[in-house]
Amino acid sequence: MDFFFNPDGIAIIGASDNPLRGGYHILNNTLGGYGGRVYPVNPKYDSILGCTCYPDIQSIPDTFDLAIFYIPAKFLPSAIEECAEKKVKGIIIESAGFAEAGEDGKRLQDYCLNLARKYKIRLWGPNCMGLLDGQSRHVFSFMFSDEWKTLMLPGNVSLIVQSGMLSATFFMMILERGGLGISKMCSIGNKCDVDEADLLEYLIHDPATDVIGFYVESIADARRFMKLCRSTGKPIVILKGGRSPSGAKAAMSHTASLAGDYTIMSHAFRQVGIIPVFDMHELMDFLRGFSKTHGSTNTGGTAVVSFSGGGGIVTADFLHDYRLPLAQLSEKTLRSLKEVFPIWMEPSNPVDLWPAVEKNGMDLVYTRAIDSIMHDENVDSIIIHIFSGRIASDQFRPLSTMKEKLAKPVVAWVTGTGERFHTFRKDLEAMGIPVFEEMGRGVSFLSAVKEHFRKKAALKEDDQS
Amino acid sequence: MDFFFNPDGIAIIGASDNPLRGGYHILNNTLGGYGGRVYPVNPKYDSILGCTCYPDIQSIPDTFDLAIFYIPAKFLPSAIEECAEKKVKGIIIESAGFAEAGEDGKRLQDYCLNLARKYKIRLWGPNCMGLLDGQSRHVFSFMFSDEWKTLMLPGNVSLIVQSGMLSATFFMMILERGGLGISKMCSIGNKCDVDEADLLEYLIHDPATDVIGFYVESIADARRFMKLCRSTGKPIVILKGGRSPSGAKAAMSHTASLAGDYTIMSHAFRQVGIIPVFDMHELMDFLRGFSKTHGSTNTGGTAVVSFSGGGGIVTADFLHDYRLPLAQLSEKTLRSLKEVFPIWMEPSNPVDLWPAVEKNGMDLVYTRAIDSIMHDENVDSIIIHIFSGRIASDQFRPLSTMKEKLAKPVVAWVTGTGERFHTFRKDLEAMGIPVFEEMGRGVSFLSAVKEHFRKKAALKEDDQS
Repeated sequence: MDFFFNPDGIAIIGASDNPLRGGYHILNNTLGGYGGRVYPVNPKYDSILGCTCYPDIQSIPDTFDLAIFYIPAKFLPSAIEECAEKKVKGIIIESAGFAEAGEDGKRLQDYCLNLARKYKIRLWGPNCMGLLDGQSRHVFSFMFSDEWKTLMLPGNVSLIVQSGMLSATFFMMILERGGLGISKMCSIGNKCDVDEADLLEYLIHDPATDVIGFYVESIADARRFMKLCRSTGKPIVILKGGRSPSGAKAAMSHTASLAGDYTIMSHAFRQVGIIPVFDMHELMDFLRGFSKTHGSTNTGGTAVVSFSGGGGIVTADFLHDYRLPLAQLSEKTLRSLKEVFPIWMEPSNPVDLWPAVEKNGMDLVYTRAIDSIMHDENVDSIIIHIFSGRIASDQFRPLSTMKEKLAKPVVAWVTGTGERFHTFRKDLEAMGIPVFEEMGRGVSFLSAVKEHFRKKAALKEDDQS
Repeated sequence: MDFFFNPDGIAIIGASDNPLRGGYHILNNTLGGYGGRVYPVNPKYDSILGCTCYPDIQSIPDTFDLAIFYIPAKFLPSAIEECAEKKVKGIIIESAGFAEAGEDGKRLQDYCLNLARKYKIRLWGPNCMGLLDGQSRHVFSFMFSDEWKTLMLPGNVSLIVQSGMLSATFFMMILERGGLGISKMCSIGNKCDVDEADLLEYLIHDPATDVIGFYVESIADARRFMKLCRSTGKPIVILKGGRSPSGAKAAMSHTASLAGDYTIMSHAFRQVGIIPVFDMHELMDFLRGFSKTHGSTNTGGTAVVSFSGGGGIVTADFLHDYRLPLAQLSEKTLRSLKEVFPIWMEPSNPVDLWPAVEKNGMDLVYTRAIDSIMHDENVDSIIIHIFSGRIASDQFRPLSTMKEKLAKPVVAWVTGTGERFHTFRKDLEAMGIPVFEEMGRGVSFLSAVKEHFRKKAALKEDDQS
């Protein structure tokens, strides 16, 4: 599969010099990050964007690994034949007009698949956005060049998505929010050949990928997929479209996907340690969180640190909903907190720092509280509520170190307004502290983290016994 | 209770000329919107912000309705005595140091309450932020003057909150987001006298308030409170802190609140038509949504209109989770959609508009789809997914009219990036279309809307039979 991500030579069939056309953006995106040979193909041009343009595939003077197909569907069979001559290993088909466009399209798609198999050419798509690599900056997609360039930061999260429109618009929103660094983003559309299991296998072995997210409407080979998921310690977060009978029916007409019975599937998810989510925002929140969370000892309870009594109370309610125990703070921690608390207030968990802050100032109180609580052996995770306007983000640098050293997951719930709020949030995320805007989402993430590390440890033990 | 909101004369005990002090902001906020007599009280000044300042309450030359107390707690008893001389009807106590600050504070609070009762003076607070009125612009609170002024827009939503810090920081975030117009914002803190039921009664009769939201940790007089909720058609949305045993314990130390058994309480909520929520964001999303939703016929199912197959599928899954039926589109609607759809695609609900948009353009297809679907008698509500960059907000003006005329709730799920996205979202909300950023939240809101109008109709029938 690596020839899709790091090909030796690429032909772009349907390259264009018109910035309103996808064929322009595929070429422009490719030239932007890919340093190898690029062959635009279009009989209308002699050159585009400084590259020699070829009237057809045959005219390309050398062999090449990858072709990107972006001309009408009916031309795909002949393109496959010509690609075979050029020793092509894979074709990314970004055009639509195949199985999703009715019976004729389905027949065409099946025909092309058989043809490609004959030549041992792998097909990616059709009806997809192709791929983006945040680290190598290889972008083989018709996405508008100006949109992703500034927003896509390199990182350790890879995504596999089935719905083009949903993921394209959503992807941009999520990148704009910040805090989520991308390794590979793969849009697989009708996935007539390369499917979620092929890519999962590749990403499990990809050293640049630590966390894997999916939006899928069907899983082609469930047995293989589950086995792959079970085999890896990397968190795998899945939003499955078509969980309900009506959703499944819609999935059938959307990507011709047989959605399967979600009750059975979710049971299998649990068994192999897959983390299910139900909304695009939840998917992205979880991926962001997991990308910054590398362990959990699962040996105690959660400490809640807030500057508001109400925040602590509502968080405690959520922890209860998710059956996450509140930590019983040690005597040592309580003694340390008492030194900065007003005498009339007994520290307890959830820890309401406000009265202490009024007495001793934000910096001293937060630093003291976080340090003693993170080192408390009864505490295995911490939820911190911070009001961004009142304290510098630098105060949280020690927390980000402790979190790694002690393998105690941290969830920050940040409130505030204006540019100050966004800067603060981004600072924290740059330090590796996952920030959530909804407290409930933060707690559900923490629950998923503890479950993930517990499950993966149990599966490992199973394998060894 | 009206003397708290529209007093005839106000004394501000602890007014200050130092913009870093709350006493400055109380005065500055009061002068900003309140046109009546204002008497700052502080022996240190002759005048503040152009008002004559009085050394003590006795020196104020006239009687007045309201005092705002912002000096140390121990001075409250004498202030009550002096206020009684001035025929004061209510005191808003924004200082802390009462029941929330331990046993001594509790004794002081009880003593003051007895004293005030003797003089028939109502006490608001202590340990609270006071009140803000978005319509009259009466703001009797120490909130920083520059923060709320531009952000607080007048509207029909009133809020009663128990936690000062939580609500203050949260309130600003919500106002910054936009789309939520405020009638009254009441922070009641320790609520030693004026409680949620007193304010609820006032707001039920307040013509400026259509929707009422609560964050409370306890309900002082549950019987009275439930009876009031049952008596009104106005939606009442409640975030109850201390639902869990650990949360309830924390509430006890936060506002000395006896949180009560949430299982029993939530049952009572259901009986009287209260809408429960679990997170501050959810509370605000629901208030925003209800403020723009004035009826639901509950005679059919929900139509889902999306420009992405995936969006429709995930929405259908959520509808199923909330047991909301998908509408069976009428033959007439299907015929109308077919005219703009490509021949290979049968329109069905969820309606994926993308192939039609590619064929006939965004404007024509959205307008056609919304008009025929909103008038479909099998449809009683609609969820619309819009990509903000690709269509002008003006195209949705007819929808906002239809929604009112046909009493069919609308939920818009808007995606997009940058300023364009925020402007589009705000445009839609200004037209009265509630916008949600998370699809799941939009569906849970729709479920609450349908339940609310069904419940209120049933209760009315009960009363008449």
